Amino acid sequence: MSPLDTTHDPARRSWLESANAANADFPVQNLPFAVYAPDRAGDWRIGVAIGDRILDLRAAVHCGAIGAAAPGLDTAPLCADSLDPLLACGHAAWRRLRLALCGLLSAGSAWQPRLGTALHDPALARFRVPARVGDYTDFFTSIHHAARVGELLRPEQPLLPNYKWLPIAYHGRASSILISGTPVVRPWGQLAARGATEPRFAPSARLDYELELAAFIGPGNALGSPIGIGQAEEHVFGLCLLNDWSARDIQAWEYQPLGPFLGKSFGTSVSPWVVTLDALQPFRSPWLRAPDDPAPLPYLDDPTVRRGGALDITLAVQLRSAAMRAAGLAAVTVSTSNARDAYWCLAQLVAHHTVAGCNLRAGDLLATGTQSGPLREQSGCLLELTQGGSKALALPDGSQRRFLEDGDEVTLRAWCERGGARRIGFGDCTGTVLPAIDTPR
Amino acid sequence: MSPLDTTHDPARRSWLESANAANADFPVQNLPFAVYAPDRAGDWRIGVAIGDRILDLRAAVHCGAIGAAAPGLDTAPLCADSLDPLLACGHAAWRRLRLALCGLLSAGSAWQPRLGTALHDPALARFRVPARVGDYTDFFTSIHHAARVGELLRPEQPLLPNYKWLPIAYHGRASSILISGTPVVRPWGQLAARGATEPRFAPSARLDYELELAAFIGPGNALGSPIGIGQAEEHVFGLCLLNDWSARDIQAWEYQPLGPFLGKSFGTSVSPWVVTLDALQPFRSPWLRAPDDPAPLPYLDDPTVRRGGALDITLAVQLRSAAMRAAGLAAVTVSTSNARDAYWCLAQLVAHHTVAGCNLRAGDLLATGTQSGPLREQSGCLLELTQGGSKALALPDGSQRRFLEDGDEVTLRAWCERGGARRIGFGDCTGTVLPAIDTPR
Repeated sequence: MSPLDTTHDPARRSWLESANAANADFPVQNLPFAVYAPDRAGDWRIGVAIGDRILDLRAAVHCGAIGAAAPGLDTAPLCADSLDPLLACGHAAWRRLRLALCGLLSAGSAWQPRLGTALHDPALARFRVPARVGDYTDFFTSIHHAARVGELLRPEQPLLPNYKWLPIAYHGRASSILISGTPVVRPWGQLAARGATEPRFAPSARLDYELELAAFIGPGNALGSPIGIGQAEEHVFGLCLLNDWSARDIQAWEYQPLGPFLGKSFGTSVSPWVVTLDALQPFRSPWLRAPDDPAPLPYLDDPTVRRGGALDITLAVQLRSAAMRAAGLAAVTVSTSNARDAYWCLAQLVAHHTVAGCNLRAGDLLATGTQSGPLREQSGCLLELTQGGSKALALPDGSQRRFLEDGDEVTLRAWCERGGARRIGFGDCTGTVLPAIDTPR
Repeated sequence: MSPLDTTHDPARRSWLESANAANADFPVQNLPFAVYAPDRAGDWRIGVAIGDRILDLRAAVHCGAIGAAAPGLDTAPLCADSLDPLLACGHAAWRRLRLALCGLLSAGSAWQPRLGTALHDPALARFRVPARVGDYTDFFTSIHHAARVGELLRPEQPLLPNYKWLPIAYHGRASSILISGTPVVRPWGQLAARGATEPRFAPSARLDYELELAAFIGPGNALGSPIGIGQAEEHVFGLCLLNDWSARDIQAWEYQPLGPFLGKSFGTSVSPWVVTLDALQPFRSPWLRAPDDPAPLPYLDDPTVRRGGALDITLAVQLRSAAMRAAGLAAVTVSTSNARDAYWCLAQLVAHHTVAGCNLRAGDLLATGTQSGPLREQSGCLLELTQGGSKALALPDGSQRRFLEDGDEVTLRAWCERGGARRIGFGDCTGTVLPAIDTPR
C-alpha cells in the first residue's frame, strides 16, 4: 500500500459497533472476502466480513456505494458468484476496492444507512469454496514439521539435503477441497505400519489434521514465463486457513516413491474468509536464515522478501470430542504456532512454482504445509504432537488422543496482533470426523 | 456392447474411401472424439475422426442426421465446444451415439450426401485439450518401468514393497496439459546428481519423454462414495496418448519426500483424439498375475477384470532431430511396447482412486504412467532406454541421444491389431523441444 494508505490505522472505527470490539476478527482494518448465500434459499454472492455481519458486495454495487467510492472501478467482478473474476483483476483493482470498502464501512460514512440494509448474519448464511481451484499445491514450508515428521520416518536422516535449497511441494487434489463445516468421513484404505511388507484393508486408524495457511492466486502467468520473486506477491490475493486432513497409515504405505495420494485426497477443508495480503501488511516480518543455512539461490532471493517476506500470524488448533460437546465443554486448544517460523515464505513459493515454466491460473491454491513451531508443543498435527501416536494427549472429557476419533471436531484459527496495529483474524476452519462407511463397494 | 452390436464387424466399410485403407487409424469401427476448429478463424466444436477427415458433430446434429439415427438422444452435448457435457452423459448415451455414428458413416447410409458436406480436413484444423481437466492423476502401472527406474535410483531395492499391492499414483498438474503439437520449452531448475548435497541452477540437461495412455473420466462419484471395481469402466469415456515430459535432473533433486513437482509440471502433452472404451472392446486381454504375485485385495478384484480388464494396445515412440528434419529423414522408432503388459489395469485405477472417498469429476484425466515392456528395448522413456544416460542411442543423422536435445521432435503413436478385428489407431501425440529461455526473471 502507498504511504498515504490509512486503512490500517488502528484508530479507525466502523459504524458497525461489533467491528470495534478489541477481540473482533473482522474490524474495518481487515475486510476479508468470502462467497456466501444469505440463507437456505438465497443465491451465491461475494461478501466482505465486518464485525459480526457480512456486507453483500453485490448489494453495495447496486445501491451505488462502490461506484461512488471507487469511480471507474469495474464492478462486474464484484457481482459474480465466485471470486474468480475478482482474482483475475490484479493488485491495483484489489487495492482500490479495499480503499473504497474501508471508507464506506468506517464511522462517518454517508453510506451507512444504505449499507446497513446490505448486511447479513453469518450464522444464517451458507458458504462455499470461494473460487474455482484449478490446481491445488501443498508446500512443506515448516522446517520444524519437516524435521519432526522426518525423525519418525527416517531417524537416520530426518531432514533431506534438498530441504534448505528449495520449497518442497506436491500437487494436491482439487476436487475434494471442502468448505469449513463440511464433515469429513474416515477413509478406508490399505494400511501398513512402517517397515511392513503387507497391508490390511480397513478404515484409517491414524487420522490426523494439518494446520496450514493457503494463498489464493490472482492473475497467473503464461506457460514458460516464470514469475520473478520481486513480482511474486502481486500474484497473491490473500490467505485462508486450510486443514489438510491426513490418514497417516494410508500415507505411510502408499507414499513411496511418488508422494501422498489417497492419504490426503479424501478431503481438504478451507475457511470461508480470504484475508487479503493488503490487510496483512502491518504484520510483515523479516525472512531470516541461520548463519549456517545456505544462501538462497538468486531466483528465491530479494531484498524486500528479506526485509518483510514472512508473516507474523498466530495459528491455533482446537479440538472438541463428541463427549465434550455432549457435556457442554468448550473446545481445548491443543497447539499454537506462528507462520513467521516457516523456512520458506510466500513470495518464494510463487517464484519457485513457476521457475521451470509451470503456469499458475487465477483461483489456484498454494498451501503452506503444516505450520509447526520450534517446540514440540507448537506442532500443527497430531503425528508430531503425539510423537507418532506414542504419547497420548489428555482431553478434558477424560479421554486420550493419539489420533482423531469419530465425532472429534477440529477447528483451526488464526489472528495477527502487534503493537501499533489493529488485531485482525481469519475466522474458523472447522470440520467433524464422521465414522467410516460400512464397506466400500 | 450388447451381443448384437456390429460396430466392430471387420467387414463393415465406410462410404468415405480413406477410412477403408488397411492401415487407417480411423476406420468406421473406431470413431474417436476431439475438439477442433476447422481453420484459423473457425470456432471450437466436437469432431469425430473418419478416415482422413473429421466429421463436424454439430453439423451432423443440425442437418438432422443424429436425430434420425438416435431418436430422443439429447444432442445438446454434441453441440458444445468441449467434451465435458458429453462426458457427463454416461455410458448408455455414449453407446447410442456410437451406434448412430457407425450407421451414418457406414457404406450405404442415406445420409452420405448431407454428411459429406460436414467433413473437415484435419491438416487445416486446430485442436485443443478436449475437456476441462479438473484434476489430472498419473499412475505408475508398468512394473517394468517401475523396476528399471527403481534400479537406477535404489539399486538395493528397485521395486518397493507396496508396488504389487496398490496402483501407485501422484496428482499431476492440470494447468500445463497441452494439446499435441504444442512445443515444450526446456525448463530451468535446481539440478543435482544422485547423492549430491548442493544443486546448481541451470536448464535441464536430462530432458525426457514418457509414453503413456490416459483415460478421460465420464460421470464421476460423490465425495465419500467409492466406485466399485465392477462399475469402474462405466466411468471411463475413452483413452488418449499422453507424453509426460520429465526433467530427470530436476526430478531427482526435488522428489523426496513428496514426489515429482517441477520436474513434470512444465508441460504434459495429450493427443487430440479420444478413442472410446467401446471402440477398444475387441482388444481386451486377460489381466494376469504371476503365481508368486499377491492376490489383489477384494476391492481391486473382479472376474470381468480378470477375464478382460487389460487392453492390447501397441505403443510406439518416434524421434526426429532437427538435423533429421533438415535432411528430410523420417522419424525413427526408438521403442515399442504394449499396454497389456501393465501390472494394473484401468478398472483398478478407478476403483483405487476412489476407495478412500476421493471424488472424480467428468473431464478428469487418469494417466497410466510410462508404458514399458519386459525387455529394455521396450522402454517408454529415455531414462530406461539409455540406462540413466549411460548408453547412448544412435540416430540416423549420426548424432547420439542420452536425453532429448533442443529441436528434437517426439511422437507417440498407438494402435490395436488383432485377428478377426479391424485395426484401429490413436493418431499422434507430438511435441518439439525448444531451447530454454534466456534466464528466468
